[in-house]
Amino acid sequence: MRVAFQGIHGAYSEVAATKFYSARCTTLPLERFEDVFAAVERKRADRGIIPIENSLAGSIHQNYDLLLARKLHIVGEVHLRIEHVLMCHPSSSLKQITHVRSHPMALAQCSSFLSRNEKLKQVPFFDTAGAAKSLVDENALSCAAIASELAAKLYGLKILKRNISNSAQNYTRFLVLGRRPLQPKRNVKAKSSIVFAPQSNETGILFKILGLFYIRNIDILKIESRPDPDTPFEYLFYLDVAGSPAQNKVAQAFEHVREKTRLFRLLGSYPMGKGNFYGAA
Amino acid sequence: MRVAFQGIHGAYSEVAATKFYSARCTTLPLERFEDVFAAVERKRADRGIIPIENSLAGSIHQNYDLLLARKLHIVGEVHLRIEHVLMCHPSSSLKQITHVRSHPMALAQCSSFLSRNEKLKQVPFFDTAGAAKSLVDENALSCAAIASELAAKLYGLKILKRNISNSAQNYTRFLVLGRRPLQPKRNVKAKSSIVFAPQSNETGILFKILGLFYIRNIDILKIESRPDPDTPFEYLFYLDVAGSPAQNKVAQAFEHVREKTRLFRLLGSYPMGKGNFYGAA
Repeated sequence: MRVAFQGIHGAYSEVAATKFYSARCTTLPLERFEDVFAAVERKRADRGIIPIENSLAGSIHQNYDLLLARKLHIVGEVHLRIEHVLMCHPSSSLKQITHVRSHPMALAQCSSFLSRNEKLKQVPFFDTAGAAKSLVDENALSCAAIASELAAKLYGLKILKRNISNSAQNYTRFLVLGRRPLQPKRNVKAKSSIVFAPQSNETGILFKILGLFYIRNIDILKIESRPDPDTPFEYLFYLDVAGSPAQNKVAQAFEHVREKTRLFRLLGSYPMGKGNFYGAA
Repeated sequence: MRVAFQGIHGAYSEVAATKFYSARCTTLPLERFEDVFAAVERKRADRGIIPIENSLAGSIHQNYDLLLARKLHIVGEVHLRIEHVLMCHPSSSLKQITHVRSHPMALAQCSSFLSRNEKLKQVPFFDTAGAAKSLVDENALSCAAIASELAAKLYGLKILKRNISNSAQNYTRFLVLGRRPLQPKRNVKAKSSIVFAPQSNETGILFKILGLFYIRNIDILKIESRPDPDTPFEYLFYLDVAGSPAQNKVAQAFEHVREKTRLFRLLGSYPMGKGNFYGAA
């Protein structure tokens, strides 16, 4: 199994891929999210993995846009706790460190630790794994990096301190993408992700559509509205519901929603990821 | 009117503040979002302004968390189109430029322009306005920056090219915060933002709560669910609805929602911002 991801080796997306496949996969690093979709479409990879929402930063609309624009299917999900690690060159030590490199978001997420170590000057980098790699590439002895533990391992760096994030509640949910839809087995807890745009902005249209799930006892697991980038003053809705169209009631609910909307896409049905944003993993 | 914002002079938040107040305000730059809340609470500023959602990147959950944790009130909103501008030192010119500095997100949002100009090496910076300011501070003649037009003006930079974003649909919605709640006048189109957590995860609880608005003909303008950071397996819902508690039906709907939830907060009622994420401004 070959899994495409955005970033370089050691990126959190790669950590998520190896978690999902229990390390039984090879990975393909690519520059942009579009490249991940293209690699799967053109069979350079069997699967792609993309982040879709973070517990602190919210949903990544750009990836929802790509899911809508391209024709891949969600075949799995994985929740990853983002555990930032401080690392340095193997020949260096904490005493020698004057600068810390990482993505501005990761630096911000470790601001409490960094403000307790004021002598450390912060240096912005494009990505966390890139910051880690730069330490070896440049033989940088006075610099540390904040990145994943996987990055430290891959680039042979020394771990100075684990878990330096301000919040332990920093989780990212990743989606696994394939060329063919999955039909989750009946004995597996499944969920389905859909996107739709109502036919009109009539008052209560969302209430009516949720009713189509309510009358069938189907749980709503996630909901989000967003102005439609292509149609001024209209909305898109992202919905995750429990179950898959292998169950009649879910298939019927989707058919019913399709009737009431001008746009409807089943993005995929897949086994629910173990753990949860905030539960035990 | 003194308005606190996160960032340095020339940040998009400051552009939003001057748009909202038609430039009739002074601004107070602060390092973190928390500082913006604190400045308003401690009367160092009359108002604060924070980004809450972007059309490409999604909602900023961290700021929703701050709205819940602190006691300020939303008193206004403003939608700003993010127009990235390429700028350089006044004594430099496009021919001399070899590097471009900006926040990684802004660089990514201008990737089409940058890939057409491959000779330009990208340099990550903490923020767009900081990248702009650095050009003057360092007298950097071979560097350009990507930032707001306001930043170019404030730091006396030369504008090389306007509107270099990949997508014209890059909008950010900002919230204006004050110490006291606003009671929007009856002749003004108002909206209200609430956050709630249902009493239990019973199937259909969201459907039932939306029904409380439906039966009163109250429009839902935005909806978003999110796992509650403080309570494993429970959800928070963010809702924007049309109207304000100055109307009986809205006041009654909120009272009714409060009954059905274990957590309810009216974050504020305020005049609807002119324009829209995707409509004419």
